[in-house]
Amino acid sequence: MQFTSEQRLDDGVLEREFTLDGIPGVLWTPGSGSAPAPLILIGLPPLGLRKVYARVAARARYYAAEHGFAAATIELPGSGERPRWEAAEQARADLRRVMAAGEPVTDEIVDALVLPLVERAVPECQAALDALLSLPGIGGPVGYEGGVISIGVRLAAVEPRIAAAGLFAGSFVPAAIVEEARRVTVPLQVLLQWDDEANDRQAALNLFDAFGSAEKTLHANMGGHTGVPRFELEAGARFFARHLR
Amino acid sequence: MQFTSEQRLDDGVLEREFTLDGIPGVLWTPGSGSAPAPLILIGLPPLGLRKVYARVAARARYYAAEHGFAAATIELPGSGERPRWEAAEQARADLRRVMAAGEPVTDEIVDALVLPLVERAVPECQAALDALLSLPGIGGPVGYEGGVISIGVRLAAVEPRIAAAGLFAGSFVPAAIVEEARRVTVPLQVLLQWDDEANDRQAALNLFDAFGSAEKTLHANMGGHTGVPRFELEAGARFFARHLR
Repeated sequence: MQFTSEQRLDDGVLEREFTLDGIPGVLWTPGSGSAPAPLILIGLPPLGLRKVYARVAARARYYAAEHGFAAATIELPGSGERPRWEAAEQARADLRRVMAAGEPVTDEIVDALVLPLVERAVPECQAALDALLSLPGIGGPVGYEGGVISIGVRLAAVEPRIAAAGLFAGSFVPAAIVEEARRVTVPLQVLLQWDDEANDRQAALNLFDAFGSAEKTLHANMGGHTGVPRFELEAGARFFARHLR
Repeated sequence: MQFTSEQRLDDGVLEREFTLDGIPGVLWTPGSGSAPAPLILIGLPPLGLRKVYARVAARARYYAAEHGFAAATIELPGSGERPRWEAAEQARADLRRVMAAGEPVTDEIVDALVLPLVERAVPECQAALDALLSLPGIGGPVGYEGGVISIGVRLAAVEPRIAAAGLFAGSFVPAAIVEEARRVTVPLQVLLQWDDEANDRQAALNLFDAFGSAEKTLHANMGGHTGVPRFELEAGARFFARHLR
């Protein structure tokens, strides 16, 4: 892991860009505090880090400045400035084509779109945890939040350092991932935008139902796909504080 | 309104029992604070105040001691030590009979069980607000929480002093009440026990969907009918603090 830039922000938070085996990422750490900070790994949507930087940085800085967490994110495979990836490009093109034609999005299209991404992204998240947790001032346990929900499901199912996960309900979840959700046992807080024009509500409820966790909470709100209410930021921090402290 | 007992509790909260036109009730007010306290009216389940006193008093004292709210509750018509009421007794007996026989609970049985209770209880809640809001140290706006959800729906739909409502999703909601839910516009936080053995999950989701409120949040948790997680008490207080302060 190599740090490529470092900036002390006006809320005291230290923001550092890094690369890890060619993967760009950002780490935010609290301005003060002597005990090791629990880490929240923030998953990205497949839009590229630059496009979502402002939104992700605002969350990360809130966690660091107000709650003393460290927060980090890494670019997804095939996104942003990372090398294009032919199979993924093809799957996205297939999705766009059937949606534009008003045709149904088949299981085959969803699987081709999501499963290879999960296969590549989860080991990269684990490698990022190896590197981040070896830094001074950062300690376990780890929370995971956001991003492509299928990646969050797999990571929560296979990575024992993940102690709690805050997930954002999305559509296009392969049936195999719904099955994996039954093996997730860590505490979960799942956000669902009830009137989300881009997501299938029933699919999201089915996935929530599938999780094996004894503590799982669904927060459904109004406001459309991008309209998650601001108070959910605080609710997320409280959820992580309960499980990471 | 006549106070019949008064007790200063060890958290500084003043607990006063009262009767209002023959209806027993309890009022909890914060031990200190100069500004008028917003009021939370706590609805009861139809079990009688004595049976649920410990649970309700714990919530009310938390609101008063930790958040500076006043909290009050009144006995439902036909419950506890209030006079029995033949039609209600008959409706409950009909419900028990069909449930014991494994027969479906028809719309007629639900309507007979719930609608007369709503008709009686809502004006009593409004009379209680008249009396409580005239007391020194208690000011508007008012939050309503808990109890028979159909009563909460009607009260939120018709009573303009209710500024926010925290409701507990239950079954046996008449179709007419689901229609009234479309007229509710105040902010809502609805608790649903996802694995509630006593409630129909889809009916609860349909009711949540029907509410007309621009801000409505569903919190679904595990733990069965009586297993609402303790952290929801704090989440409820934060919801009311956002809307009553």
